[in-house]
Amino acid sequence: MLVAEIIAIGSELLTPFHTDTNSLWLTEKLNSVGIEVKLKTIVGDDESRMEEVLKDALQRSQIVISTGGLGPTEDDITRKIFSRVLKRPLILHEDILANIRKLFETRGLQMSLNNERQALILQDAQVLHNANGTAPGMLVTLDNDRRIVMLPGPPREMKPIFEQQVLPNLQKLSHGLRVHRKVIKVSGLGESAVDGQIAPIYSKYKNPTTTILFNRAEVQIHLTATASTDIEAEKLLEELSEKIEEKLGINVFSVQGESMEEIVGRWLTVKNYTIATAESCTGGLIATRLTDVAGSSKYFLQGLVTYSSQAKVDLLDIPMELIVEKNVVSAEVAEAMAIGIKKKSGATIGVSVTGLAGPDGATPERPVGLVYIGLASDVEVTHRKLQLPGDRERVRWLASNAALDLVRRRYLI
Amino acid sequence: MLVAEIIAIGSELLTPFHTDTNSLWLTEKLNSVGIEVKLKTIVGDDESRMEEVLKDALQRSQIVISTGGLGPTEDDITRKIFSRVLKRPLILHEDILANIRKLFETRGLQMSLNNERQALILQDAQVLHNANGTAPGMLVTLDNDRRIVMLPGPPREMKPIFEQQVLPNLQKLSHGLRVHRKVIKVSGLGESAVDGQIAPIYSKYKNPTTTILFNRAEVQIHLTATASTDIEAEKLLEELSEKIEEKLGINVFSVQGESMEEIVGRWLTVKNYTIATAESCTGGLIATRLTDVAGSSKYFLQGLVTYSSQAKVDLLDIPMELIVEKNVVSAEVAEAMAIGIKKKSGATIGVSVTGLAGPDGATPERPVGLVYIGLASDVEVTHRKLQLPGDRERVRWLASNAALDLVRRRYLI
Repeated sequence: MLVAEIIAIGSELLTPFHTDTNSLWLTEKLNSVGIEVKLKTIVGDDESRMEEVLKDALQRSQIVISTGGLGPTEDDITRKIFSRVLKRPLILHEDILANIRKLFETRGLQMSLNNERQALILQDAQVLHNANGTAPGMLVTLDNDRRIVMLPGPPREMKPIFEQQVLPNLQKLSHGLRVHRKVIKVSGLGESAVDGQIAPIYSKYKNPTTTILFNRAEVQIHLTATASTDIEAEKLLEELSEKIEEKLGINVFSVQGESMEEIVGRWLTVKNYTIATAESCTGGLIATRLTDVAGSSKYFLQGLVTYSSQAKVDLLDIPMELIVEKNVVSAEVAEAMAIGIKKKSGATIGVSVTGLAGPDGATPERPVGLVYIGLASDVEVTHRKLQLPGDRERVRWLASNAALDLVRRRYLI
Repeated sequence: MLVAEIIAIGSELLTPFHTDTNSLWLTEKLNSVGIEVKLKTIVGDDESRMEEVLKDALQRSQIVISTGGLGPTEDDITRKIFSRVLKRPLILHEDILANIRKLFETRGLQMSLNNERQALILQDAQVLHNANGTAPGMLVTLDNDRRIVMLPGPPREMKPIFEQQVLPNLQKLSHGLRVHRKVIKVSGLGESAVDGQIAPIYSKYKNPTTTILFNRAEVQIHLTATASTDIEAEKLLEELSEKIEEKLGINVFSVQGESMEEIVGRWLTVKNYTIATAESCTGGLIATRLTDVAGSSKYFLQGLVTYSSQAKVDLLDIPMELIVEKNVVSAEVAEAMAIGIKKKSGATIGVSVTGLAGPDGATPERPVGLVYIGLASDVEVTHRKLQLPGDRERVRWLASNAALDLVRRRYLI
């Protein structure tokens, strides 16, 4: 496989506030044409360090991609250092300068002398036109088919340049290798449980490769297939994917990157069902997630955040005696909330959550993380008891996910 | 200033799915004792590249910190490479091995031979005890007071080791330099508007330094002061901070890192007010954010997600004629929703949102991003019209923030 190296340039990337996300996007694009990223470096406006990093990179990687440091200020030293290391002079391009001037004029801004620097291009470099900013990128081809790519730092400038002007060039280098990826999302099972079930399957395959990740409340199985054609890559993916999906069954909720709320929304639409929510400890998170999906007004009717016991009595007609007798965090109250919201809203499905997200309010019988989910439909009223790990934020997220997943499992398959 | 370099080790950090976040936390901690991070490298399980990276780092930085690669598998090569580059043998520590064995026993798990590798320590290295995992860290002191620190990758193992066993050691190196930081959070003004107002103030100061960042809906002003004592650093911070806060006035909502929902919650508690929400396009996000704060049951009574027009009629007693006549996205409906939720809940403040989050439903008169916020208290009923930029997710977030900020500005100061 071809090897690339990414250098992210910018002092802000060495503060506690900024992480380099450009490289994740670049890695995905590079991988998709069969190029592997072997090293990433993050360097500030320190000339000697940057020079060293660039020299090292050129020695070991066939493709070197830099992002950032092409701005108009003194700190933006990418051009200078690349010119020095590559021993190529910087040449002022009059047409780029004219473009920059025009951009400033249309925006009604004064162009400073500093901006002229952005029209300096390495000798014999291919200019990468920047449709969304003043700094053009550059692509330099060295001996042995090595490539150096300089991209501006802002993602909305960098991405279109890379996708339209760089990727096709690099793809040629990798002899048309095609890399396809598929993500299988799983709920209701932990990372090691998933691995335990599918390792005997995927370990038989060297291609596709399999990576298992955990993300908030879901386990993601990433399959990556490499082949000489798109059709072959897809075929490799599907063969393994089918076996994994069969093994994990209903626990697989998404195979095309969709979120849990998108999947629930899609099935509600297909089945022509409507839904309404009554939430206590999740505080509106289930409603927020359901309505995060465009077009959710088709199936989401209403949501109640009945945070106080009085609100449960007032809005859901739950008898205060039931709350006092059974406790507000109980199966009985969860079911009564689900029944209440279904009746009030007229929805096909009523879903409810009551629980202890912490950190306060726990007792020996009712620890933080105890959550009841209630469900009411025309055919049944049921609940599920959970003991969730983590802090307030995590408990709330896991509870919202379990509620959506329970709806999916019971009514939408 | 002392200079440190961070090496993040792990092939997963070279995939499109994982970004190295450990280094942000480490940078903050290092900065706080006067140590600057000049370079970060991310390297996989490639032995030759890792060796090269480590050699380079040792040549240029007084402090080198690695994270990851201390696990029990073949891929975890940190020990091996550090041993080779530093020319120090790995020595099996029987007491660490006994500890690992015990950990496996208490968890009822079988220890594999691989795990023995985690008891290998570089000759003359200080063992950094890991209370949350099997792999201990290591601290090596070289000539010229240089330091090499090897930390495990999982944050919950890495952080306590670094804070308790490494930071005090490094602090001595920096001769007790104290670096204090303060974050001033601003709402209702853009990044450049904030900069325009305060640049004449902060540009007069070299210490503290000032950085302005934009984060979702708020502008953050980061001040960093360096001094030889805590008291002096605090004094420097406060002098500049006071001037900035005075200039920006009510637009400053937080000076101790609190979120908007925490600030609103704190003021509601102080004033002994209660609040209830009626949301349409934000779909429960305001309620979710308010209840994200521990103890919010003191002031948050209830929230209604009246997504459909029928739900607005049913739950908030809004006449359907008003919705038809004025449009569901209108000042009149926003105010009626606020009045309705205040009356239904008995809260001191009723807050409502109705708007178009998109991507569908827009008309020439009502474009995506048009949002009305309604407020009802005992003394007034009012609304605010907003035209928000961005996609569905961004519009919803900005709208929720504007609603919380409006409550803060009108009732809580």
